[in-house]
Amino acid sequence: MGDRTYGILGTGALGGFYGAKLQKAGHNVHFLLKSDYPDVKQNGLIVESKDGDFILPQVQAYNEVGKMPRCDVVVVALKTTQNNLLPQMLPPVIKDDGVVLVLQNGLGIEAEIAQIVGNVKVIGGLCFLCSNKVGPGHIRHLDYGQITLGEYAANYHPTGITDKMREIAADFENAGISIEQLEDLLLGRWKKLVWNIPYNGLSVILNARTDELMADIHTRQLVENLMFEVALGAKSTGRLIPESFIQTMLDYTVKMIPYRTSMKIDFDECRPLEVEAIFGNPLRKAEAAGVNLPLIRCLYQQLKFLDGKRKR
Amino acid sequence: MGDRTYGILGTGALGGFYGAKLQKAGHNVHFLLKSDYPDVKQNGLIVESKDGDFILPQVQAYNEVGKMPRCDVVVVALKTTQNNLLPQMLPPVIKDDGVVLVLQNGLGIEAEIAQIVGNVKVIGGLCFLCSNKVGPGHIRHLDYGQITLGEYAANYHPTGITDKMREIAADFENAGISIEQLEDLLLGRWKKLVWNIPYNGLSVILNARTDELMADIHTRQLVENLMFEVALGAKSTGRLIPESFIQTMLDYTVKMIPYRTSMKIDFDECRPLEVEAIFGNPLRKAEAAGVNLPLIRCLYQQLKFLDGKRKR
Repeated sequence: MGDRTYGILGTGALGGFYGAKLQKAGHNVHFLLKSDYPDVKQNGLIVESKDGDFILPQVQAYNEVGKMPRCDVVVVALKTTQNNLLPQMLPPVIKDDGVVLVLQNGLGIEAEIAQIVGNVKVIGGLCFLCSNKVGPGHIRHLDYGQITLGEYAANYHPTGITDKMREIAADFENAGISIEQLEDLLLGRWKKLVWNIPYNGLSVILNARTDELMADIHTRQLVENLMFEVALGAKSTGRLIPESFIQTMLDYTVKMIPYRTSMKIDFDECRPLEVEAIFGNPLRKAEAAGVNLPLIRCLYQQLKFLDGKRKR
Repeated sequence: MGDRTYGILGTGALGGFYGAKLQKAGHNVHFLLKSDYPDVKQNGLIVESKDGDFILPQVQAYNEVGKMPRCDVVVVALKTTQNNLLPQMLPPVIKDDGVVLVLQNGLGIEAEIAQIVGNVKVIGGLCFLCSNKVGPGHIRHLDYGQITLGEYAANYHPTGITDKMREIAADFENAGISIEQLEDLLLGRWKKLVWNIPYNGLSVILNARTDELMADIHTRQLVENLMFEVALGAKSTGRLIPESFIQTMLDYTVKMIPYRTSMKIDFDECRPLEVEAIFGNPLRKAEAAGVNLPLIRCLYQQLKFLDGKRKR
């Protein structure tokens, strides 16, 4: 086991789950919290999980980044809607030879973070996790948990599998978290969007579960059309998503347990929607390459309206 | 005044209003009703209107087409979602030299009706009317009321202004209803869709009023993109809608009193949505001409899902 210290920015359903698993496996983990801070400082973290429940009665909890030590690995587990805070939050907590691990949805976030942290390495992690926060410091892990890692290089040039990726993968696997390693982070990000764009978007706009969207022939077709547009966007940045991958995603979703998407959960709980990371950034990437994605733009505009209406 | 007899198929907010105005002006009008029949047979019709309230204590009411006399002008004032009934309803009530006047939304309905009634003339009427039914035989006319008439010929070939149009226009104008006459019915239908497609569709999908859609920059842009797609559809059938018309519609809507669209009213009152007439038919017309309308198709698919979900 490495002796890397971990800093978790955002101790919620996702950051709290992975951070607790790492600490349980013996890693030195520092947790940043907001409203849950007093409770977690006093009582630690509770994880109910299909893989076994556990309690960490004591954790290293902080309510300000300034009080945290510099860490080897800083895990960004905020919602992307809070990424405007990162220019202040990241520099004080990351070691000069550290790694920022971005466990967020959407496209282009690693490039934004690389701008902030300069020469520090940035690794993207695509999480396949069903987990909810059910109370302060109380996490309920429902299903999945795998992370797909890929290292960021300027302009999302593929890096292959790097030593830093292997080190972090080893820590997570040691903590019982399944890891896949990617040679090309951007391709992985686009592939995840093949699922996220249609299902996150339509679940909010049409107030629907994934199974309802797949049972209706019209939305079933719209989902597929949206997936093909995501592949078109990927192609505009030089990444090829084969048609068979789209068919696999459709088949996989039909067989899935009816699922409330992360964006639908955010919407139902009146949190801001991750519209820019999941829809806006891919759109702008493709349009910068001269490719229009009219259906994704339509969903983007509808979601911006719904997100803005709640704020107004 | 002509001695034409009128038959009103569908005595609701629209058919009841125009039929009552015609009877009040001295025309011989026959009203077909469903659930309101006993009440209207007994008590007649009540019209509250910004142009003056009036009561018709006695009207010629029917609950079956078979009991109605053949009329010179049969006004189709049902929702298009009931048009599957027309092959049974129309032939018994229309005189051989009569006219069917179609006061419905959407595209292609006149062609369907011409198939049913053979050589009988068909005239399309585009209604600009704000009117609600507030009780059995009780209509509240809020605003507008103008009808734009155009005669149908095979394949929507423009007919110019015909004698039949002039006769009907005279009757309606005599009843205090403002009439415009079109030389090209299909162009008029497409122009009305420039407004109906974006606002009817988005008001239902996003649970929004027209003023909210125009106040948000994203939906404002989506509305405009949809309007341009309608113009593209019109062009695919040989009809040109100038860009200035789109700008006029946008400006007009911004200045309008906040408005709940007819499709939103149907949705809120759990009635079937006129998705096929307003979205499906224009889409199929354009696609038959080799033109794709991806945004209108996206709205069509979303609306079919919402309409179907309620039926399930």
